[in-house]
Amino acid sequence: MNRTWPPTFQQKLYSFLDPSDGGGPAEQLFNALLGALILMNVGVMVLGTVPEVAQTYGPLIRTFDLLCALIFGLEYLARLYVTPLRPGLPPGWRGHLRYALQPMPLIDLIVIAALLVPGNAALVSLRGLRLLKLLSLLRLGRYSDSLLLIGRVILQRAGELLTTVLIATVLVFIAASVLYQVESAAGTEGYGSIPEALWWAVVTLTTTGYGDVYPATGLGKLAAGVIMLFGVGMVALPAGMVASSFADELSRLREEEARREQSQATPYCFCPHCGEKLP
Amino acid sequence: MNRTWPPTFQQKLYSFLDPSDGGGPAEQLFNALLGALILMNVGVMVLGTVPEVAQTYGPLIRTFDLLCALIFGLEYLARLYVTPLRPGLPPGWRGHLRYALQPMPLIDLIVIAALLVPGNAALVSLRGLRLLKLLSLLRLGRYSDSLLLIGRVILQRAGELLTTVLIATVLVFIAASVLYQVESAAGTEGYGSIPEALWWAVVTLTTTGYGDVYPATGLGKLAAGVIMLFGVGMVALPAGMVASSFADELSRLREEEARREQSQATPYCFCPHCGEKLP
Amino acid sequence: MNRTWPPTFQQKLYSFLDPSDGGGPAEQLFNALLGALILMNVGVMVLGTVPEVAQTYGPLIRTFDLLCALIFGLEYLARLYVTPLRPGLPPGWRGHLRYALQPMPLIDLIVIAALLVPGNAALVSLRGLRLLKLLSLLRLGRYSDSLLLIGRVILQRAGELLTTVLIATVLVFIAASVLYQVESAAGTEGYGSIPEALWWAVVTLTTTGYGDVYPATGLGKLAAGVIMLFGVGMVALPAGMVASSFADELSRLREEEARREQSQATPYCFCPHCGEKLP
Amino acid sequence: MNRTWPPTFQQKLYSFLDPSDGGGPAEQLFNALLGALILMNVGVMVLGTVPEVAQTYGPLIRTFDLLCALIFGLEYLARLYVTPLRPGLPPGWRGHLRYALQPMPLIDLIVIAALLVPGNAALVSLRGLRLLKLLSLLRLGRYSDSLLLIGRVILQRAGELLTTVLIATVLVFIAASVLYQVESAAGTEGYGSIPEALWWAVVTLTTTGYGDVYPATGLGKLAAGVIMLFGVGMVALPAGMVASSFADELSRLREEEARREQSQATPYCFCPHCGEKLP
Repeated sequence: MNRTWPPTFQQKLYSFLDPSDGGGPAEQLFNALLGALILMNVGVMVLGTVPEVAQTYGPLIRTFDLLCALIFGLEYLARLYVTPLRPGLPPGWRGHLRYALQPMPLIDLIVIAALLVPGNAALVSLRGLRLLKLLSLLRLGRYSDSLLLIGRVILQRAGELLTTVLIATVLVFIAASVLYQVESAAGTEGYGSIPEALWWAVVTLTTTGYGDVYPATGLGKLAAGVIMLFGVGMVALPAGMVASSFADELSRLREEEARREQSQATPYCFCPHCGEKLP
Repeated sequence: MNRTWPPTFQQKLYSFLDPSDGGGPAEQLFNALLGALILMNVGVMVLGTVPEVAQTYGPLIRTFDLLCALIFGLEYLARLYVTPLRPGLPPGWRGHLRYALQPMPLIDLIVIAALLVPGNAALVSLRGLRLLKLLSLLRLGRYSDSLLLIGRVILQRAGELLTTVLIATVLVFIAASVLYQVESAAGTEGYGSIPEALWWAVVTLTTTGYGDVYPATGLGKLAAGVIMLFGVGMVALPAGMVASSFADELSRLREEEARREQSQATPYCFCPHCGEKLP
Repeated sequence: MNRTWPPTFQQKLYSFLDPSDGGGPAEQLFNALLGALILMNVGVMVLGTVPEVAQTYGPLIRTFDLLCALIFGLEYLARLYVTPLRPGLPPGWRGHLRYALQPMPLIDLIVIAALLVPGNAALVSLRGLRLLKLLSLLRLGRYSDSLLLIGRVILQRAGELLTTVLIATVLVFIAASVLYQVESAAGTEGYGSIPEALWWAVVTLTTTGYGDVYPATGLGKLAAGVIMLFGVGMVALPAGMVASSFADELSRLREEEARREQSQATPYCFCPHCGEKLP
Repeated sequence: MNRTWPPTFQQKLYSFLDPSDGGGPAEQLFNALLGALILMNVGVMVLGTVPEVAQTYGPLIRTFDLLCALIFGLEYLARLYVTPLRPGLPPGWRGHLRYALQPMPLIDLIVIAALLVPGNAALVSLRGLRLLKLLSLLRLGRYSDSLLLIGRVILQRAGELLTTVLIATVLVFIAASVLYQVESAAGTEGYGSIPEALWWAVVTLTTTGYGDVYPATGLGKLAAGVIMLFGVGMVALPAGMVASSFADELSRLREEEARREQSQATPYCFCPHCGEKLP
């Protein structure tokens, strides 16, 4: 990052798009407008699926989508243009490519492509992908620290989380198999095969319980009751684990800070015997 | 807070309304009666919505409401009258205004206004606002410390909580979009548009599961099952986070107390036998 | 507790009923038989409510109940008889009374009374009280330490738990009021009055979601959705708090143990200057 | 474990089946293929319960099952063959027997037996036992550390978990008894006897809430509401407890590691300038 004075247009644009100090009023206004546009775009997509709205405002929605695609496209190109000023990237086209393959720019590209899909194409269902753009809202606000912390906790506990998800999945399969064995003989609807019974198992073990499928025989109710009492915990385990680890991580951060403060309080330590400064 | 002896009526009233030492029998009786009146007032409002009760006891309920408004109004005026004795407020009318704009007095004013709304006005639905008065019950009892602690924890983790709520909201929108794509083609009831599908998504991801809307196609059940297994945790995350942070805060308070006790226990570190300073 | 040698019958009985060292084979057999009898008694009561079973085995069940009452009564009298040997109780009849008013003996007395209620009396519904006897199973086993720890944690956090339960209750009332305002105008079944809407609010905020009552209007679904997303956490808060506090308490116990071990490792501390033992 | 050089076939096989260093490409490929076969076997069983699939591909599925039995059988025999090289086992046939009675080999044997059951036998329902083979997937991957940690936490807190499960069970019985007393008189369906009401109690207290059974009377709804508000926490307690203990255990492991590092960092406490021992 070699900066010159006066700053070039590229440098001005970079510090406008990614202000290191939170940004002045102009940057904050730009971010607020961009956030509002993203929310409006998602809102229009959501409302555009209501048949009456689609019939009345169809062309208007299409125009708005193309306008959004234009604005998002310009922002994307501007971000790509200032890539050489970003730290930690190789120079030249390889830096541009490396930046373009990062998660956020990739999502931006997908969203723009999804907005450009014509309304009467077979790919129209892809336009729901623009929901991903909501994720970039997190980058705008002051919640990115929290998001990073939560993400780090989830990554740190990835092994444990995958294990609990695997255990939950095995439990779902076992529950479905047991109830299939018991209820399929009685001809209860929804237990005709294990794949069918899996729907019951997921709905039950996540405690959603729609009530479209439930055991009818006494033995089935007994088995389902035991599975519920023990299984509820296993499926709720990952959430509790993330929450606990998160609190744990926060307390570790605070402890580290306290230790750093303490070590700054005694900046020089001398040997009590010879008076020399200790390393 | 300049106090004279003998205490003036204002000072007596202040120590009666906000006793610093928990209060004597008179103050406790007053608080208990006030609490009972609040509960009765809410109870009468709840029962007054039953059509038979409203027809039979309508005028009686109206009279009771006005009586409550009178008593709550007198309490409000008394609290406003003793404002100059409250610490940390500027003198004169600015102190009164500052006090009147604090959350609790503001809620008191709204509740009194809600009670005075005539029964046949269009604003009658505002009378439900008196439920807010229940919050002042927390001020009366010995639970205010716990409430403050919970409130502080929620404020401390505000960023993280907002992030998790945002993630949950994004997840709800994604779930609704996916199921809309899959089920609207099959014409399943409740998935006619994304706004309709949002109701299913919220009911499902909070694991409420009324069972009024659920996917009918195999692909929809598969998608819903995967969303449930992974989504249940994200929606339950905020609660777990508050609970963990709360326990963490309590343990920090206890540690601090222990450290304070320890540093008081050994104020000077000298050998009691030879008087040399100990390492 | 003045013990003589050889032990009197009272002392033998006391150490048989409440063995301080876990008990020999005889005591363990007695406890196992008593536990089995309690479980059988509860099982018979549960099965006795099935109409076919009650018709066929009615007199047999009645006889078994009276037999159980006899055995539980003898155990109760034996425990009362050895009261003078229990530590921490005043001598004479005041000790007996004080023991009889403790929770466990009181429950024992209620259970015996419930068993003696004749089958054709109006008080027959009181016989369900014998379920309380199940609690004494916890005394028998090796789970009493865990139960005490959980109980202590709940007592320690009593203020916080009551606050969260109070917040949950206020939330339930607010949810019921809001949905009543919105849905009663549309005439949706189950929202005719706030007391009716309370049933919906409790079923929803505990995420049970039977599906017998749910909002029908768009505005009602929007309000219910927002209430669900935010309310789910508040109702699940107490459980998370108890769990966190419990883990916290366990870690505190371990720390204390570690500190005790450490202080035992350096039983004598000497001043490095004069060599005198430090206090 | 006496190893010779060059390694015998038995030693090569042992280090192939249980590589101590994670294994080379050949071992990883073998494990991946074995994992894929297990998943395919389970998938075929699940799909084989769909009537149309069973009719069309019945003999093919049967052949695949026997092939799987052959492969799993060969793996089982190979593992048994290398038993003398496993550490911590007595020599001779007693080592083989001790190994065969360990949980994992026992599960392997049950799965092989389940696969060999002929398709037209009465024992056909036992074939669902092959789901247990999924557990051995955990052994293959890098998740075994997490699984061991979770297992250790559950074992450590076994007493507390059993206590909470017992409390939950008692609560379920009390809820069923109360609602039976209230609702059976009104003739509400699903509350005809306590065993019937137990189904409602389990479905409600785990917050599944199918909606097939719910109280109809006002008193029943009041009782059910109170039970829900207080009971929800008790049933969710075990999961929260495991999650908290797990985070606690992880933080203890980290602390221990930090202490070990600290004690290694300053093995000798001498001033590097004068050589005097530091306090």
